[in-house]
Amino acid sequence: MTALILILNGPNLNLLGEREPEVYGRETLADIEKACRAKAGELGLSLEFAQSNSEAEMVELIQKARGRCAGLIVNAGAFSHTSIAILDALQAVNAPVIEVHLSNIFRREDFRRHSYVSRAATGVICGLKGHGYVLALEAMARLVKGKS
Amino acid sequence: MTALILILNGPNLNLLGEREPEVYGRETLADIEKACRAKAGELGLSLEFAQSNSEAEMVELIQKARGRCAGLIVNAGAFSHTSIAILDALQAVNAPVIEVHLSNIFRREDFRRHSYVSRAATGVICGLKGHGYVLALEAMARLVKGKS
Amino acid sequence: MTALILILNGPNLNLLGEREPEVYGRETLADIEKACRAKAGELGLSLEFAQSNSEAEMVELIQKARGRCAGLIVNAGAFSHTSIAILDALQAVNAPVIEVHLSNIFRREDFRRHSYVSRAATGVICGLKGHGYVLALEAMARLVKGKS
Amino acid sequence: MTALILILNGPNLNLLGEREPEVYGRETLADIEKACRAKAGELGLSLEFAQSNSEAEMVELIQKARGRCAGLIVNAGAFSHTSIAILDALQAVNAPVIEVHLSNIFRREDFRRHSYVSRAATGVICGLKGHGYVLALEAMARLVKGKS
Amino acid sequence: MTALILILNGPNLNLLGEREPEVYGRETLADIEKACRAKAGELGLSLEFAQSNSEAEMVELIQKARGRCAGLIVNAGAFSHTSIAILDALQAVNAPVIEVHLSNIFRREDFRRHSYVSRAATGVICGLKGHGYVLALEAMARLVKGKS
Amino acid sequence: MTALILILNGPNLNLLGEREPEVYGRETLADIEKACRAKAGELGLSLEFAQSNSEAEMVELIQKARGRCAGLIVNAGAFSHTSIAILDALQAVNAPVIEVHLSNIFRREDFRRHSYVSRAATGVICGLKGHGYVLALEAMARLVKGKS
Amino acid sequence: MTALILILNGPNLNLLGEREPEVYGRETLADIEKACRAKAGELGLSLEFAQSNSEAEMVELIQKARGRCAGLIVNAGAFSHTSIAILDALQAVNAPVIEVHLSNIFRREDFRRHSYVSRAATGVICGLKGHGYVLALEAMARLVKGKS
Amino acid sequence: MTALILILNGPNLNLLGEREPEVYGRETLADIEKACRAKAGELGLSLEFAQSNSEAEMVELIQKARGRCAGLIVNAGAFSHTSIAILDALQAVNAPVIEVHLSNIFRREDFRRHSYVSRAATGVICGLKGHGYVLALEAMARLVKGKS
Amino acid sequence: MTALILILNGPNLNLLGEREPEVYGRETLADIEKACRAKAGELGLSLEFAQSNSEAEMVELIQKARGRCAGLIVNAGAFSHTSIAILDALQAVNAPVIEVHLSNIFRREDFRRHSYVSRAATGVICGLKGHGYVLALEAMARLVKGKS
Amino acid sequence: MTALILILNGPNLNLLGEREPEVYGRETLADIEKACRAKAGELGLSLEFAQSNSEAEMVELIQKARGRCAGLIVNAGAFSHTSIAILDALQAVNAPVIEVHLSNIFRREDFRRHSYVSRAATGVICGLKGHGYVLALEAMARLVKGKS
Amino acid sequence: MTALILILNGPNLNLLGEREPEVYGRETLADIEKACRAKAGELGLSLEFAQSNSEAEMVELIQKARGRCAGLIVNAGAFSHTSIAILDALQAVNAPVIEVHLSNIFRREDFRRHSYVSRAATGVICGLKGHGYVLALEAMARLVKGKS
Amino acid sequence: MTALILILNGPNLNLLGEREPEVYGRETLADIEKACRAKAGELGLSLEFAQSNSEAEMVELIQKARGRCAGLIVNAGAFSHTSIAILDALQAVNAPVIEVHLSNIFRREDFRRHSYVSRAATGVICGLKGHGYVLALEAMARLVKGKS
Repeated sequence: MTALILILNGPNLNLLGEREPEVYGRETLADIEKACRAKAGELGLSLEFAQSNSEAEMVELIQKARGRCAGLIVNAGAFSHTSIAILDALQAVNAPVIEVHLSNIFRREDFRRHSYVSRAATGVICGLKGHGYVLALEAMARLVKGKS
Repeated sequence: MTALILILNGPNLNLLGEREPEVYGRETLADIEKACRAKAGELGLSLEFAQSNSEAEMVELIQKARGRCAGLIVNAGAFSHTSIAILDALQAVNAPVIEVHLSNIFRREDFRRHSYVSRAATGVICGLKGHGYVLALEAMARLVKGKS
Repeated sequence: MTALILILNGPNLNLLGEREPEVYGRETLADIEKACRAKAGELGLSLEFAQSNSEAEMVELIQKARGRCAGLIVNAGAFSHTSIAILDALQAVNAPVIEVHLSNIFRREDFRRHSYVSRAATGVICGLKGHGYVLALEAMARLVKGKS
Repeated sequence: MTALILILNGPNLNLLGEREPEVYGRETLADIEKACRAKAGELGLSLEFAQSNSEAEMVELIQKARGRCAGLIVNAGAFSHTSIAILDALQAVNAPVIEVHLSNIFRREDFRRHSYVSRAATGVICGLKGHGYVLALEAMARLVKGKS
Repeated sequence: MTALILILNGPNLNLLGEREPEVYGRETLADIEKACRAKAGELGLSLEFAQSNSEAEMVELIQKARGRCAGLIVNAGAFSHTSIAILDALQAVNAPVIEVHLSNIFRREDFRRHSYVSRAATGVICGLKGHGYVLALEAMARLVKGKS
Repeated sequence: MTALILILNGPNLNLLGEREPEVYGRETLADIEKACRAKAGELGLSLEFAQSNSEAEMVELIQKARGRCAGLIVNAGAFSHTSIAILDALQAVNAPVIEVHLSNIFRREDFRRHSYVSRAATGVICGLKGHGYVLALEAMARLVKGKS
Repeated sequence: MTALILILNGPNLNLLGEREPEVYGRETLADIEKACRAKAGELGLSLEFAQSNSEAEMVELIQKARGRCAGLIVNAGAFSHTSIAILDALQAVNAPVIEVHLSNIFRREDFRRHSYVSRAATGVICGLKGHGYVLALEAMARLVKGKS
Repeated sequence: MTALILILNGPNLNLLGEREPEVYGRETLADIEKACRAKAGELGLSLEFAQSNSEAEMVELIQKARGRCAGLIVNAGAFSHTSIAILDALQAVNAPVIEVHLSNIFRREDFRRHSYVSRAATGVICGLKGHGYVLALEAMARLVKGKS
Repeated sequence: MTALILILNGPNLNLLGEREPEVYGRETLADIEKACRAKAGELGLSLEFAQSNSEAEMVELIQKARGRCAGLIVNAGAFSHTSIAILDALQAVNAPVIEVHLSNIFRREDFRRHSYVSRAATGVICGLKGHGYVLALEAMARLVKGKS
Repeated sequence: MTALILILNGPNLNLLGEREPEVYGRETLADIEKACRAKAGELGLSLEFAQSNSEAEMVELIQKARGRCAGLIVNAGAFSHTSIAILDALQAVNAPVIEVHLSNIFRREDFRRHSYVSRAATGVICGLKGHGYVLALEAMARLVKGKS
Repeated sequence: MTALILILNGPNLNLLGEREPEVYGRETLADIEKACRAKAGELGLSLEFAQSNSEAEMVELIQKARGRCAGLIVNAGAFSHTSIAILDALQAVNAPVIEVHLSNIFRREDFRRHSYVSRAATGVICGLKGHGYVLALEAMARLVKGKS
Repeated sequence: MTALILILNGPNLNLLGEREPEVYGRETLADIEKACRAKAGELGLSLEFAQSNSEAEMVELIQKARGRCAGLIVNAGAFSHTSIAILDALQAVNAPVIEVHLSNIFRREDFRRHSYVSRAATGVICGLKGHGYVLALEAMARLVKGKS
């Protein structure tokens, strides 16, 4: 049976490709999903890909992943910096978490340099735009297989 | 002609596999170099792989990369948190930089959560142990080709 | 007519008993509700018991308590530390508030030591697990009767 | 064709007139909407007037304003101080934003003195109660016409 | 008898229109005075309009307004951020104060984000260039008439 | 044999009922002791009830409780915020500690919001005046019996 | 009947005249007491003059002054900077407090620049050595008579 | 020849008796001057008594005191907290300085708790209203005679 | 036509040579002016040399230099650390600014280590006493000629 | 005549060997005293060895050492971090002070990393358990003889 | 076989005896080495004694001590306060570390009060000049033998 | 005999003219050396001119200057902000130090605004590019001759 990976995207990521492209690039979230599905196929993983502008919905998507998903890839967007509720939900899941950001958050405003998600994450990948998700999937494949 | 990538490792990384394996893993730096060379072969990149315990030597290795290397992958270890000289050297190179850390530095002591290298880096990958270098190479391959 | 008390629980408290039991204990929220209903019966109070992962829903449950509930017992979970909207809603209610936390938040991470809810609360009970709710009900019974 | 302006109100503003009237005044949100509609008529602007207790809903109302509204007047209430998601949404809209607060937030608690919305706003009007909205509309009329 | 309003402008505002027009706009202070006088006429207010580069002179203009002016509109410029003497003078006047800034000071350098004048002001209007003065006059007209 | 509980009160609590009654209420410490003794009787606990204005004496009362008392209920008053010696003494006792404060210390001056006692306490109850002691006894009864 | 004034001196003030005379002067505490008694005679006040190295004893001397003394003059020495218990005791006394320090504490180490006693004091006199006590008595005489 | 003492008052002190009398009392500056002249007569001192709303004028009055005045009594008002220029002028005078404040600045807003003048002062007297000046004169008489 | 340079000196610099000579040296401001005039002659520059104890006057001297002076050399003394008005005036001048301090402000009190003037200055020279002005003139000569 | 050394131990050190042995070791204070007496004999020093849980008593023991003891070895325990009174007493003694801590306080909680005693101490020895006292005696022997 | 101890000295310690003797004393590093060798002889330890001005060389000397030395005595001089690389190297050695400083770093500039070396050290000895090394050797002898 | 001056340049200054010319200018270090040698000739000084990327080498070059050089001109580049070892070496030299920076470090990133070198320097010259070195030489010539 293939392992199921949840890729969860936070607020405003639905605007990807349109919003501040000099920061976030011109790829849309659909482009990223497509690239992820291709890579997941290669890696023998199955994939759920979600986006939400709601902290509550994100908490619940994470809760639903408990016992069902083998790993989570999370780009919580603005909630990365403000949501302890998402952190708590992630800590309640017994599965590896990889945090992804499209931009290098360490070169941006001060308030974007701290992420609550990092406290629950095995690894962090940022600044590599949509390709960062694909790399996260590769990393997740190893974590799920117990390698690394 | 293949693009040349410098992978530069900072202080104490020569002890990898022996030092605090619960934090840094059991892979040695030689294991990581081997994995990187394999991946570079696949990606059609050529590779220089160096380690130094000396800030001065790291500055000079970076200076020597100017105009010669197409990209730098840097795990500056402890110098990440203290060396403005390495930051300045990286900013003097006209080539993309990817920062790598074996551990998730955002879950460790406060003084490890800030990195000067991040200010010069396109992307950051941390917490994925030796595999993070391989992912950085993949990301670098795209950056060098002008994708993403 | 019996006084109506709202017991309101915040995000991830629906996972109680499963999530980090070494921190939060093995009781479920249903267990706590049951104990509260028993105690409310003894005290001649009627009870609404709610849980939500949504800040908006919590704000609205509090708004709806205005003029209808004689007191609120609030364990806002992660929102305790981040939600000024919940604080504002509580301050708009003319009824006593008792804040409850299952764990002793003053022995945990720095970001859990500050609670916006405390600014609107008459009293705070923390670290006594599910029993803290029962004690809060006893305290509320006195506040509602104008004692103490 | 008349320019469309969105006036967006955040959490607990539905209680206006009832909640802490010594801070926020006795006008209701309906009174304010009425005054705004009168002024918009004078100014030849059309108006959408919304209130939400949900950060997610506010993000989505802002996203929907993209390309459709000529300007936004935002009183994000408590979310002003905590929501980077709303800031990000506002920065994704190519239209002027005016921030309004009923009270003078600079004379209140420390945590109310900082607003993320200000980072996306052309102008800020605070402390003038409901009349502040009307003034914001006048200012918006000029911004929309490219004056000032 | 018409109510007298003092509009007081601080240091370097005499350079308006010439100094950093990308920040402060191209209107001169004379343009603003003219627009204010027109609006005051409409509103049935009489107006004193002053500018000073001297903190002492500003303190004394404010002192002289005591018992004589029905309201003050103050753009203290750089003194907003440094002058407790002006704050003290404003607090000694029994009349409403509206603070105006041409630029949105909350998007500028850190030291411009704090204003002592705000502590004495009923309302604050910033970022709306010269039009902000006109709006302040409208707001003052209502405050003076005891509305809002 | 009944379990012995020490209830220890810090400086100025001997003035209770006389000192700042709007903050601390009108009950005297003798009233509280009486209520505690009644509750202890119900719960089958025996009780020592002490008050001291001396940090040294409090340290020694705590030391003497080692191996003799099954639990401590501590309202260290002003020493809560300043005494590491009391914290050290409490940490040397192998028995549960419940911290009590009459007022809600989180709504008071900044220097009262931090308590060293909290670091040694299982639970904290504050803001519920004298009734907080009674609730602490109930909680202690369960802790002593190994419940919760 | 003459008003009774308590002059209370904190730790190490018994060493006055011997300890760091370049900071505290060469007068002994007995010299100061003598000067105070002379001045009290002139002013028609009666005097208690005490010194203690014990915070507990100081708290109790202040408690005993409640209802018995018309005013307190307090040089709490090192406890000024650390004792909230003394502050609480002073706030429980319904009589004016004047704080005295021999040296100008605002020109000394950082930790001596803050005094908890100041929060309970009507006035503060420092840097005037033993004469400061005499001036405090003069000020107290007026406060006690309800002047100033 | 009698020693000359300068008593220098800062901004807004000309409003004394009218401005915020609950903070500063009902005495006017003229009342204080009169009391000071009476006391100076007793003490055999001659007196200059000045007030200015101008930092520059205060600096110059202090400069003119050099070599001419035997001591300075300074209530710099709001400039106490902001003027390094006045501090520098005071440090250039070879004569004792006593700082006076009418109110107890340590019980007021944070920004009033720090005084640059304190760094140049032998002693500080605050919170004793106009009587503080008279006490300062007494203290100055002793300093000038080389006592204490 | 020779370029005109304004050398502007702030508060208390008129006391130079007399005030704290161990910090500022024994040269008077007249000595410095003389040395500057000699050097200006050599360099073919014409010179205005001014001193003021008034922030307002300094602002106005700077405003008057606009369009008339080719460069400004500014030792704002104590105002360096406190005057945003002077910073704003300097930023309104389109000419190079060199900041001079007689002492090395980085080895003095904390509040002297920050200068607002530095934000408007091309270069800073400090610690070289009166000679620093002469060096500033040499530097200015090059800046004015467009070299370096 | 042999030099007299006071070894003074602060609060809770009477529990040594019983309290948190993983931090403080299993030696009792009596064991340490015995080792110190043996070493003092070797070194030709005489010894007073005291422990107190009272800050006041510690202050007085230090005061009594003035002029009588040739040196003090102080482990002030928790008071190290909170007692300015002990610091003042130590500064009033004209004899060398060596500070000892059983544990390495620099690896413990933040509030244990600062010691007021260090400001009065010639040297500090920590982390070496009971042996640290013996080493301190050796160091004291040299200091007393004027070596080192 | 005798246990080997490395004594490692950091930058500028080669100047000992010449550099700032009022801070560091007149002993040279050779004097200290001689005293250490004598003491090591007594204790049956063998000794390597090194000094380096290079962080890299210090890191490598520490790395070379791994598995070869039974203990390290480290005076890292200025690197104590800045080098995380040395901390990491020390944490990679499985042997006790004692930190030595000649001066009492807690009485010096703020930036000298924090040491990264302390985080890896069992014990710290400072302020006892060259004798501190000898005491460290005695302590090390016990640690190496597993005592204390 | 001519006085010998050491001009010492820190890391990355070897790249001058190539690296970030918009910040550091287009002059090379060789150009600067040439200009310095010309000026030194004029001034009758002899010159050593060095650059190093190694903190250790810089420390040693400074140590070697002791007793041999009459003055040091130091541009420590990135090490200015991080190296206490260089500060210590400079403080061990009995000769004047002038600090030079090419750019105005006070207008750059926060971490470049603090320099340890400033603590050891008589004077600081920054922002004047290569010409700053020439001015430093002129200043040094006077310092060496004991003028100013």
